Amino acid sequence: MNVKPRLASLHKQVDRALDRWLPPEKTRPATLHRAMRYAVFAGGKRLRPILCLAAAEACGGKTSVALPAACAVECIHTYSLIHDDLPCMDDDDFRRGRPTTHKVFGEAVAVLAGDALATIAFEILGRTKETARHGAGEFFRELSKAAGSLFLVGGQVADMEAEKREATPAELLFIHRGKTAAMISVSLRLGAMSANATPVQVKALGKFGENLGLAFQIIDDILDITQTSEQLGKSAGKDAAAGKATYPVVFGLEKSRREAARLTKAALKALEPFGENADFLRAVADELLGRQN
Amino acid sequence: MNVKPRLASLHKQVDRALDRWLPPEKTRPATLHRAMRYAVFAGGKRLRPILCLAAAEACGGKTSVALPAACAVECIHTYSLIHDDLPCMDDDDFRRGRPTTHKVFGEAVAVLAGDALATIAFEILGRTKETARHGAGEFFRELSKAAGSLFLVGGQVADMEAEKREATPAELLFIHRGKTAAMISVSLRLGAMSANATPVQVKALGKFGENLGLAFQIIDDILDITQTSEQLGKSAGKDAAAGKATYPVVFGLEKSRREAARLTKAALKALEPFGENADFLRAVADELLGRQN
Repeated sequence: MNVKPRLASLHKQVDRALDRWLPPEKTRPATLHRAMRYAVFAGGKRLRPILCLAAAEACGGKTSVALPAACAVECIHTYSLIHDDLPCMDDDDFRRGRPTTHKVFGEAVAVLAGDALATIAFEILGRTKETARHGAGEFFRELSKAAGSLFLVGGQVADMEAEKREATPAELLFIHRGKTAAMISVSLRLGAMSANATPVQVKALGKFGENLGLAFQIIDDILDITQTSEQLGKSAGKDAAAGKATYPVVFGLEKSRREAARLTKAALKALEPFGENADFLRAVADELLGRQN
Repeated sequence: MNVKPRLASLHKQVDRALDRWLPPEKTRPATLHRAMRYAVFAGGKRLRPILCLAAAEACGGKTSVALPAACAVECIHTYSLIHDDLPCMDDDDFRRGRPTTHKVFGEAVAVLAGDALATIAFEILGRTKETARHGAGEFFRELSKAAGSLFLVGGQVADMEAEKREATPAELLFIHRGKTAAMISVSLRLGAMSANATPVQVKALGKFGENLGLAFQIIDDILDITQTSEQLGKSAGKDAAAGKATYPVVFGLEKSRREAARLTKAALKALEPFGENADFLRAVADELLGRQN
């Protein structure tokens, strides 16, 4: 399956919806809305929203039913990047070759643009049409849990704390699950729920996302130390230099590679019940995990 | 009506629910959960959640039905205070006589504790039982709108921008509506909705809250310049010194007093259809607007 054209088409569908649902740049206060849009339209791959739409399709729904959930997870993802890049956190001046939000708009507006994106995520999620199996409250509880103190935000705190000393395997898993796997998993779950999936389907796609997310993160960790900056298209060895907790540091390279392979297999196994309906999800996983950068 | 014992009892009801619904301090990452609780249990008056519970009662419901909404608005309020106090914003070292969250836990954890409280607000709101008239989606849309870029977050951006130059009357209204009135108004609306209020009741209580919130803010602005620090129990003249946009600065003292009186009257008028069921809300308004500090 040539996955590229389909990825591009879903990417465009997500971008159009985000453009429609975020307040226009001129809306008062204009600085805030410009900053929100600057961060959202910064050239991201839209991995999470695309997986969300694909999950709806794998469950027999149209991608359009999952658009609110897809845009909501992307807003959460974007806000977390803005705050992670702040001087008091990872202090990054550039992301994807562009100055980070706080470099362009100042720290205060960057914090508030993140806050506003975190909030509008729930407003946009509120556009989801309830299905026979999934009420509105369930959608909100899923997203707030994954984005909250036990997963996304908690993962960032644990990540910062792990810079100060060597992380244990349990801490490393907590960090990667929180910072990466939980939001990927919930993207798939919300997409499935938007298409009125059965609880068994929601669970299977969530499991696919969890394993995919962890495998993705381990491979990312491995590439950071095995590839040159040229191959990566960004500074290599950055995580190691920052003293970040990574799989190769905690487990060694060989064991990390085996774990990535095991997780990839588990991810694909979770898709089996969907037959050919999950072919696109499989192709996205191949694309993501086989990547060299 | 002696309002004090009833205020104390509702305050306690809110505190108990917050204690139940926030993760325990020891939950990993413990630093984050300690910071969240430090900020939430910092001796606030719980004005917004108390109004939320009182609104439910004024519409014939038990206060307990509105507890999730009440705790959700308090989490949003608390997160906004943490972020407002950050060095890159108002740079406040103390709040209610205690060191601010970032002074105790550092800036990074303060940003993230704010993020986690903003997120858990929606998780807690998800505990609301839908009523015949109000579905779950409506609750989430109400809160995310009031807390978002057009009101709470937008008000803070406008407030910071107004420090650099003289604010117009329209800008001042935007700031006060966003930073104060919108969250007070939505507290009352959510409380009413939790008690299955009619749309007319929800609208009336929202109007009460909007006018009460604006009157409260104007009186706060007036006290800041007319009272001594001793009378206020905090530094007097702080807003003026920071070049903040306030009613007395923009309109003068006399016109500000008249406007506060007009808004108070409009707030009480909105309660008329509730008869004696709104006696407690009237008493809270008296308490709030008649206060000397």
